[in-house]
Amino acid sequence: MSEPRTPDFGETVRKVFDRQGFMRHVGARVDHAAPGEVTLSVDRRDALLQHHGFFHGGVIAFLVDNATGAAAGSLLRDGRQTCLTAEYKINFVSPAKGERLSCTAVVVKPGKRLTVVEAKVHVHADGKAKLVAVALATLANLDLADVGG
Amino acid sequence: MSEPRTPDFGETVRKVFDRQGFMRHVGARVDHAAPGEVTLSVDRRDALLQHHGFFHGGVIAFLVDNATGAAAGSLLRDGRQTCLTAEYKINFVSPAKGERLSCTAVVVKPGKRLTVVEAKVHVHADGKAKLVAVALATLANLDLADVGG
Amino acid sequence: MSEPRTPDFGETVRKVFDRQGFMRHVGARVDHAAPGEVTLSVDRRDALLQHHGFFHGGVIAFLVDNATGAAAGSLLRDGRQTCLTAEYKINFVSPAKGERLSCTAVVVKPGKRLTVVEAKVHVHADGKAKLVAVALATLANLDLADVGG
Amino acid sequence: MSEPRTPDFGETVRKVFDRQGFMRHVGARVDHAAPGEVTLSVDRRDALLQHHGFFHGGVIAFLVDNATGAAAGSLLRDGRQTCLTAEYKINFVSPAKGERLSCTAVVVKPGKRLTVVEAKVHVHADGKAKLVAVALATLANLDLADVGG
Repeated sequence: MSEPRTPDFGETVRKVFDRQGFMRHVGARVDHAAPGEVTLSVDRRDALLQHHGFFHGGVIAFLVDNATGAAAGSLLRDGRQTCLTAEYKINFVSPAKGERLSCTAVVVKPGKRLTVVEAKVHVHADGKAKLVAVALATLANLDLADVGG
Repeated sequence: MSEPRTPDFGETVRKVFDRQGFMRHVGARVDHAAPGEVTLSVDRRDALLQHHGFFHGGVIAFLVDNATGAAAGSLLRDGRQTCLTAEYKINFVSPAKGERLSCTAVVVKPGKRLTVVEAKVHVHADGKAKLVAVALATLANLDLADVGG
Repeated sequence: MSEPRTPDFGETVRKVFDRQGFMRHVGARVDHAAPGEVTLSVDRRDALLQHHGFFHGGVIAFLVDNATGAAAGSLLRDGRQTCLTAEYKINFVSPAKGERLSCTAVVVKPGKRLTVVEAKVHVHADGKAKLVAVALATLANLDLADVGG
Repeated sequence: MSEPRTPDFGETVRKVFDRQGFMRHVGARVDHAAPGEVTLSVDRRDALLQHHGFFHGGVIAFLVDNATGAAAGSLLRDGRQTCLTAEYKINFVSPAKGERLSCTAVVVKPGKRLTVVEAKVHVHADGKAKLVAVALATLANLDLADVGG
């Protein structure tokens, strides 16, 4: 996307996520973190399913939320800015039936005030990946000086 | 919204949610369930927070997903139809800092094939409710005969 | 919504719209403009229809765009700030068959950087109003000093 | 995307658009129409602008509406099905300042009942294209037999 503004970005994002009780509760991990692009995933277990045995839509939305936030955050000025999820829209296109769920978020448009990020979520089973959701998110970039950080 | 097509709807929705591992994992409950309107809520605990100590956006999205689905489901023909979340859009308008999080979903337009539902999410603290998110969802209605149910 | 920050707001918004070629081309008018709430409408004519004789979705989206922008703009500091549409989502819930189309936008959450606005679009025929679309929009507030205005 | 179900699809979509008063009023044309992918464009003129001289957001939304609908329609069974725009979400990422505006819509997920389509809108100036909007749309597929067509 652009040159890494935060060289050790993968480490930074893992540290932030380690401080999220819900990230630990869901049990997701960072598979890939590069400037403008982040992939998270989670393995199937009963605690993450809905009543038909598929991954719950809430788990899919959680991955979208964290992956888009991290992708947008990767392009901010390290230690000076942070970002908040302003909104996203998510389309569920197939049942999330499989052993693993992954979400890859890619920045479409980095901006001074707002960053727009696309995400695609796949479910993995029998060595194949199937698209289960598509999302489009807007993140608001804030100067830490403005938020007392 | 209209006359109840499923008289014991509150019981029905609780039974469906009891079979969702993720609903139990998050620990949400059904506060109110009437035709076209459903409220869910969850209490604050570390496992549901993000790194600033607010409710995680993924928890908010989970409540929106389940509440909008249940509200749409309440207007279907009992035992003959089901509905799936096609998509939703969610705006996060304030940090979800508080003791309890609730989501109320109201059907805006019931339809033969699609149902459109609005949701508002509030956080509760010191006896006050604050709006933290607004959502707009589309549910696809399916005949159980068509899905082999 | 709050006290009017721009006393002559209705006049201001009409002046802005008068400078929009597309507003004149579509032929829409300002029916109501108060702090946090704006209604626009347009009369039926062939140039605004799609192939079944209903108002075109693009006309509906245009009204949503201008009405949400004006509603958000009504709460800004007069002469010091402006706002831009960051994004919106729109659900089309019924065919827009009728003599007049109106859109009412109401601010849900005014913010320092972002304003969130809901809109409902109705079609009018035989003295009755029918809901045809629901929308949820995010506007970015900018200081004119920052944009060279 | 898949084999063309409607061999003369480009011709079909042009005929449908010729019957839209609003398509003629805006003055848009079909640049490209293949199964699952459609590009529309429109040239700059005063009647399509907002008050800063950029293409109006309503023109952008109109192109998204028609391009996503045509892309989804290209994968339906010719003469037996039609599709309606259920909803879309659109992010405006840059001012649409230029000589020509184009929108390319690509089907992400064709479905039996719903089709999901992504769209990107570019503005063209000085031989360069700049991304101005990104959209994600849901179309409902209907059997003509069900709608009396």
